[in-house]
Amino acid sequence: MSNPIGVGLIGAGTIGCGVARLLLESRELLTQRVGTPLNLVKVADIDWERDRTFNIPEDLRTTEAEEVINHPEVSIVVELIGGIEPAKSFIIEALNKGKHVVTANKALLAESGKEILDVVMRDGADLGFEASVAGGIPIILALREGLVANRIVGMYGIINGTANFILTKMEDENLSFNEALSQAQALGYAEADPTLDINGTDAAHKAVLLASLAYGRLFQLPDVHVEGIEEIDIRDIRYAQEMGYTIKLLAIIKGEQEQVEIRVHPALVPSQHTLSKVKGAFNAIYVEGDAVGPTMFYGKGAGEMPTASAVVSDIVAIARNILSGASRRTAPFSYRNLSNGVKVKPMSEVESRYYMRFSVLDKPGVLSSIAGILGNHGISIESVIQKGHQTHRESVPVVMMTHHAIEEHVQKALKEIDKLPIVVHPTVLIRVEG
Amino acid sequence: MSNPIGVGLIGAGTIGCGVARLLLESRELLTQRVGTPLNLVKVADIDWERDRTFNIPEDLRTTEAEEVINHPEVSIVVELIGGIEPAKSFIIEALNKGKHVVTANKALLAESGKEILDVVMRDGADLGFEASVAGGIPIILALREGLVANRIVGMYGIINGTANFILTKMEDENLSFNEALSQAQALGYAEADPTLDINGTDAAHKAVLLASLAYGRLFQLPDVHVEGIEEIDIRDIRYAQEMGYTIKLLAIIKGEQEQVEIRVHPALVPSQHTLSKVKGAFNAIYVEGDAVGPTMFYGKGAGEMPTASAVVSDIVAIARNILSGASRRTAPFSYRNLSNGVKVKPMSEVESRYYMRFSVLDKPGVLSSIAGILGNHGISIESVIQKGHQTHRESVPVVMMTHHAIEEHVQKALKEIDKLPIVVHPTVLIRVEG
Repeated sequence: MSNPIGVGLIGAGTIGCGVARLLLESRELLTQRVGTPLNLVKVADIDWERDRTFNIPEDLRTTEAEEVINHPEVSIVVELIGGIEPAKSFIIEALNKGKHVVTANKALLAESGKEILDVVMRDGADLGFEASVAGGIPIILALREGLVANRIVGMYGIINGTANFILTKMEDENLSFNEALSQAQALGYAEADPTLDINGTDAAHKAVLLASLAYGRLFQLPDVHVEGIEEIDIRDIRYAQEMGYTIKLLAIIKGEQEQVEIRVHPALVPSQHTLSKVKGAFNAIYVEGDAVGPTMFYGKGAGEMPTASAVVSDIVAIARNILSGASRRTAPFSYRNLSNGVKVKPMSEVESRYYMRFSVLDKPGVLSSIAGILGNHGISIESVIQKGHQTHRESVPVVMMTHHAIEEHVQKALKEIDKLPIVVHPTVLIRVEG
Repeated sequence: MSNPIGVGLIGAGTIGCGVARLLLESRELLTQRVGTPLNLVKVADIDWERDRTFNIPEDLRTTEAEEVINHPEVSIVVELIGGIEPAKSFIIEALNKGKHVVTANKALLAESGKEILDVVMRDGADLGFEASVAGGIPIILALREGLVANRIVGMYGIINGTANFILTKMEDENLSFNEALSQAQALGYAEADPTLDINGTDAAHKAVLLASLAYGRLFQLPDVHVEGIEEIDIRDIRYAQEMGYTIKLLAIIKGEQEQVEIRVHPALVPSQHTLSKVKGAFNAIYVEGDAVGPTMFYGKGAGEMPTASAVVSDIVAIARNILSGASRRTAPFSYRNLSNGVKVKPMSEVESRYYMRFSVLDKPGVLSSIAGILGNHGISIESVIQKGHQTHRESVPVVMMTHHAIEEHVQKALKEIDKLPIVVHPTVLIRVEG
């Protein structure tokens, strides 16, 4: 048997503890699979006082990340502190020192991916980031290897567990957005500051990585059209249900090799579609390839052990490469060269079906005014729900589902409609997928 | 760029044509991902007269498998003729000649896996068999790499599309088994001789491979308890539905590292469970790992292009190994050593809940006789459906769901019950999972 392969962790928070637990408690299993032991050599954290889910042995602890990076026995550095700095500097320093790197840092990779990748390419090290998208689900592996023979036609991901938990609670238990958010926080499914989860940014970071893996170009956050779930109203969830749909926060990546749409926004998904059955904090990515057809990958998108499972799968992959002398066997983003000419489709050109909820005065002719403007913009209506008179209400809702239309036309039409004196509140617009 | 890597196919049936199509039509995409072109060098088939879905260029065709195996430019031999011989001889010959091998042949691997693996181990070649289980779903990759940090707690697979198509048709369209089978044959979802699909053998072959990947021992067909769907009656589907269940043909692999159950049989799955939503010819494997928790992998389990997608993913993985000089980077069954001491749990010791349909005379005291015998064997009843008097019928059905019980006790109890003079037909027994 070869020499053990040394692993060092930077960051001993929840995920770090999970990784340490797996490396220590499943050491024998991992040795059987890798062919040599994986040694946890050093763990850096700035605070060793707080309570942890796993007791990291005292002799492994340090407060200095440099001690991990520079340790001669450490071949694989695992960055789990999150955020941009100092995570970025640690990763670059480790790569410069000839270490391989594993990270779960989606924000860093989505925002500074090119800078890090340049160093990876130059230094010939391996970079693993399976844990950065969809927690324990091996979706990056699937895109990099399992579905490698496919042109990706489309990906539809529920990749933010917090948002999905909130939407599920609203739908299943009739809670308001704020009530559902409070529950998510109480149960630990949402952080104290849940902004990035509910405004779609976290999902957009992950969408950047998924799109880059699928289309051979390193995309960036501004390439993604992002809308969050802050404005989702329980009434829209109910109307959607009435029409046979469930509202999900979706990451949508689709297109040809020449042009791709990357967007994150709430969407109506047919209630019969597998994605609409993905409940609570679970994640799922529906991937359609030109050869394989539709596939789906489902599992826990966050949490200590699911995320640790993904981190350790990266450690094992790199260890297997080290053992067979094959570092950089696979390009980090699957393609050898990330200079594909694929363009991002401007949001204004995106085609979709639309759900619209108008808040209008309860007067004759309202429907025809709205339908008229939509018609002028080439938008045709598939179905309408108009609830009867609601006395004591300032306005009544009119809900419409359109046929396929162009985003730009829809936005222009709504701007006109929202100026009508009969329209009391800005119109709610949610796209329909599938 | 390195030299192209040569690929040769043995078998130009449906899957072979799909593989040739991908290698030729997606050549550029594959080159971008591998870093060097994959050259289709030679394709062997005994019959070049019949109609094909893809026109394989004339200069690639041969009728001699040896021409593929011995071709100096072929590094990777893909066996797609199926069956035991001559597939086995071709594979062993190719390995002996230093070629890497990709196969979709689950029957061969399940029945002669050890023999082939011994040659693989000795010759240091790579063996890919992603396409042998669940078609386009990268489940072998997931077990070998993505979930490598996990002890597998359980796997529940719908891995025979023909059987699932038949059961779905029966449930959704109220067809009899024979009507559903005829439809499956008419639509090409079942072969002229569907025996191995409906009697569970095909799923058992796949279960052998999944269990071996998960538990580090090479299992064999006799290790699997197999029952097919031939006896499933539309009445059982309806009673199951009434109690909130769907009947699926499941491959069940579960256990600890010391002892594992491997069985294929129809099972009642809760209608709310994701697996019960897997319809028609689709496949899905629900995998629970000790770290990752529950995951699910879903997609097309058969067909030309989905299966070709899996075959080509193996070709790419091996090509990446060749390029980085890292053949045998990963052990074929994930574990370096397949001599784990894990035992197969005897079926008699398996614990399950049970659905029982008794066909009894419509007389007083029937229920108490049956319940008495069950009670004597320590089997307690969770619920009963007893339909009212059905005149003009020789017998009436009594349906019971039990709490957890031991298979041996259940079999003994049923033997006694079926001897009662009030019992008109042998009792129908279906296990309940989840």
